[in-house]
Amino acid sequence: MQVSFSADELIAWVKPSGRRGDFVDKVTGIASLEEAQTGDLSFLGNPKYRQAVAQSRASILLLPADYDGEPGPGQLYLLCDNPSAALGMVCSRIEQQLWPKPVSGVHSSAVIDESAKVDPSATIGPLCVIEAGAIIGPHSHLQARIFVGRNASIGEDCWLMPGVVLGAECRLANRVRLHSGVVIGSDGFGYEFVQGRHQKVPQIGIVEVGDDVEIGANSTIDRARFSRTVIGEGTKIDNLVQVAHNVVIGKHCILCAQVGVAGSTVVEDYVVLGGQAGVAGHLRIGKGVKAGGQAGITTDIEPGQFVIGYPAAPYMNERRLQVLHRRLPELFKRVDALETRH
Amino acid sequence: MQVSFSADELIAWVKPSGRRGDFVDKVTGIASLEEAQTGDLSFLGNPKYRQAVAQSRASILLLPADYDGEPGPGQLYLLCDNPSAALGMVCSRIEQQLWPKPVSGVHSSAVIDESAKVDPSATIGPLCVIEAGAIIGPHSHLQARIFVGRNASIGEDCWLMPGVVLGAECRLANRVRLHSGVVIGSDGFGYEFVQGRHQKVPQIGIVEVGDDVEIGANSTIDRARFSRTVIGEGTKIDNLVQVAHNVVIGKHCILCAQVGVAGSTVVEDYVVLGGQAGVAGHLRIGKGVKAGGQAGITTDIEPGQFVIGYPAAPYMNERRLQVLHRRLPELFKRVDALETRH
Amino acid sequence: MQVSFSADELIAWVKPSGRRGDFVDKVTGIASLEEAQTGDLSFLGNPKYRQAVAQSRASILLLPADYDGEPGPGQLYLLCDNPSAALGMVCSRIEQQLWPKPVSGVHSSAVIDESAKVDPSATIGPLCVIEAGAIIGPHSHLQARIFVGRNASIGEDCWLMPGVVLGAECRLANRVRLHSGVVIGSDGFGYEFVQGRHQKVPQIGIVEVGDDVEIGANSTIDRARFSRTVIGEGTKIDNLVQVAHNVVIGKHCILCAQVGVAGSTVVEDYVVLGGQAGVAGHLRIGKGVKAGGQAGITTDIEPGQFVIGYPAAPYMNERRLQVLHRRLPELFKRVDALETRH
Repeated sequence: MQVSFSADELIAWVKPSGRRGDFVDKVTGIASLEEAQTGDLSFLGNPKYRQAVAQSRASILLLPADYDGEPGPGQLYLLCDNPSAALGMVCSRIEQQLWPKPVSGVHSSAVIDESAKVDPSATIGPLCVIEAGAIIGPHSHLQARIFVGRNASIGEDCWLMPGVVLGAECRLANRVRLHSGVVIGSDGFGYEFVQGRHQKVPQIGIVEVGDDVEIGANSTIDRARFSRTVIGEGTKIDNLVQVAHNVVIGKHCILCAQVGVAGSTVVEDYVVLGGQAGVAGHLRIGKGVKAGGQAGITTDIEPGQFVIGYPAAPYMNERRLQVLHRRLPELFKRVDALETRH
Repeated sequence: MQVSFSADELIAWVKPSGRRGDFVDKVTGIASLEEAQTGDLSFLGNPKYRQAVAQSRASILLLPADYDGEPGPGQLYLLCDNPSAALGMVCSRIEQQLWPKPVSGVHSSAVIDESAKVDPSATIGPLCVIEAGAIIGPHSHLQARIFVGRNASIGEDCWLMPGVVLGAECRLANRVRLHSGVVIGSDGFGYEFVQGRHQKVPQIGIVEVGDDVEIGANSTIDRARFSRTVIGEGTKIDNLVQVAHNVVIGKHCILCAQVGVAGSTVVEDYVVLGGQAGVAGHLRIGKGVKAGGQAGITTDIEPGQFVIGYPAAPYMNERRLQVLHRRLPELFKRVDALETRH
Repeated sequence: MQVSFSADELIAWVKPSGRRGDFVDKVTGIASLEEAQTGDLSFLGNPKYRQAVAQSRASILLLPADYDGEPGPGQLYLLCDNPSAALGMVCSRIEQQLWPKPVSGVHSSAVIDESAKVDPSATIGPLCVIEAGAIIGPHSHLQARIFVGRNASIGEDCWLMPGVVLGAECRLANRVRLHSGVVIGSDGFGYEFVQGRHQKVPQIGIVEVGDDVEIGANSTIDRARFSRTVIGEGTKIDNLVQVAHNVVIGKHCILCAQVGVAGSTVVEDYVVLGGQAGVAGHLRIGKGVKAGGQAGITTDIEPGQFVIGYPAAPYMNERRLQVLHRRLPELFKRVDALETRH
């Protein structure tokens, strides 16, 4: 990805609170402290890497305001309140250059039912399929090979990337971003066991996705048995996540990669589930709960708790138990010794 | 999803064993006890929610025969042996209205090799690809953007949803339902380590999927190294599940979301694997085994066992150990005290 | 899959070091020791199945050189240094017959931007989309329904199977094999929490995939926040694996199914991660590390270690702790007894 901008342009974008040193050429890349070469922009986002600043070969470095080292020759330090956010602003500028707005209109290879309503400002890319009664809102972008089922609806400014499937009757609000391979509205997993066979329970509900939701590649959100599976406004879901039928995810949650949430569970607002965490069905996960990676949640969790492990338990308890667990060999020896003395 | 039916229609469908109260308008929705509003049908499927019946604003409630409360004004209770199954019957009726049978025939945008055999009663939707020698049976429905590889075969009344990939030579029996993004017949994961490199072991077997199998969105079933990977009749597989090469899954099993089964393992009939459970390779999981969510199975399991944890062990033992584990702080203190006394 | 070859052909392919018995008909199948019938070729690859050789009904068996049993009537034993590798050679031969080389050229249904460069020896199958500036190298095969984004590049002899998405600017080197549903270059999962909302951090980096990499069905590799996410030469990745932004995977690693690696982690060469293992972000996993299935890695791991469990710890320690953990009931009783005595 070719980038090219001057120190002056950069300073205009990030408005640093201070600067040390100078760099006169164009910036032509962005890289981590360790990987950066002459011509690269870098930054200190995580205090863990503080040591790496002095060794970095980057030409311009975004650093926290309290960083007190001195730049090398031909190196420019820019001091900012939040170097990570500052870099984000820079990347945003570059992003606009790299991914230009798509041109409105429908590609000739798309297959669109005549009863579907596509806003004239929307972009329907090659090889999309839009079934009867579906609605595509203003400025939404179906990039390529998207499937939109019967009566599904998509609001404004959504972006569906290649290969997304939006099932019948499901609804996306505004500014929803679905990465490649996302499936919204697959059937919930419900069966009745009758005479030695699993008999399908019809799944006739829908999925409703709120404003500003983003869902990562190949994640799957099942339609409700009846009523709705809900992904609340502003929630961000990573890749390969499974959300089962009738789950209600609140607003502004974070579900990391490979998380699974079983049927009918309610996840309240601002919950963060670490990678590969699993939540059993019919539970309530309170507002602001955090769960560590691989946590296995089998009971309701009170608001604000931080839980880890399987079965998931409060962090401090669990850490203490982990430490004692590692001391089991010692404990066995101590009990051996006590017994010997008698 | 718009629904509209009367109490009389409902009674004709579910044939309740008793009724209390009355509701004269049309039912216009289905919702859980807690979410239901006037006009909604609800039900008590899980005894856990029994308390919620009296507060529910649903207009008609399907309740177990032994439920002894009284409906509010304008509310109708219908008593049934199995309220959950009764609701299933209602949803079935609605499903038929919502998802009408597809019209037979081949969409003009589909790309079908002339040597493929497509039954005239089958439906091949837009942008499907069917390679040489493939066979599509009567009444099967390839919804859109399906890929069927060389010499693959699909039986009667199957339904493949948008984006499914059925690899070369693989076989689906009858009434198989594959949700969006399912991949059948990807290569098994097999390599020989030769001179510092992983050399690919050819994977030339197939996948055979039995009658009435359903497989959830974005699940993957690898073809055998040679011979067959088998999914037995009536087995139901949830989303994002991985079944490796040469695995044999028996009949009427349940594999919940994100389960993984490693190569050459045999899973006998009626096994239930909870969400995110993993099974190592070359094992035998006996008939009727149940494994809890996130269980990590590393040894053969005898028929009928219920196992949990990692490494997976019988439920009662494991629960007892979990309880004792949580008492470790106390145990350490008791041993401290014993030592002090000497 | 129909196969047909004689014992003489087989002997010419595998060059056995010894033989016992004879089989005069054609081999018409390949099967495991247990499943094999007359006419099948089988082999002893795993010493665990040694007992099954004598009972096997296979007509020809590939066995280790030190196997000392005698074949039944009409049965042929071929002794080889590595029966598994020998079978691989046989399968390779069959593979070439079964999956003939595709014919070069572009299918009429593919949608290719005029600024894309497709080598004349490449094969672009039906319903592929190739965006502006993309490059497809010699002899590469895009089987069907592939998406290649702006300025992405694919080297020589790559094979992309139906449904693959290769995002803008991402790069595949040579002989890369991507199975169906793989997504390369989805956005990394990065947000800044600002005024109660998760604000997207632009993800403007790329993914670089080295020579001879193979990636399994529905796996996802995120593009870097900036700079590169890297999959090193010769690394093999199984199905449903997640690799987050800015991760660097070394050369010749093995990532089994459903593994997840969080952002910015470095996995050095020759690492093996078992199925469903998870690795937290910003870690370094040393050269040659092995992690068991479901391991949860939360700290850096020194080269050459074998770790299991959560949090992942060296195998020998962890196994010992598991054994002591199972003896907790006994330990509690012993402490009870000690207390009683005082």
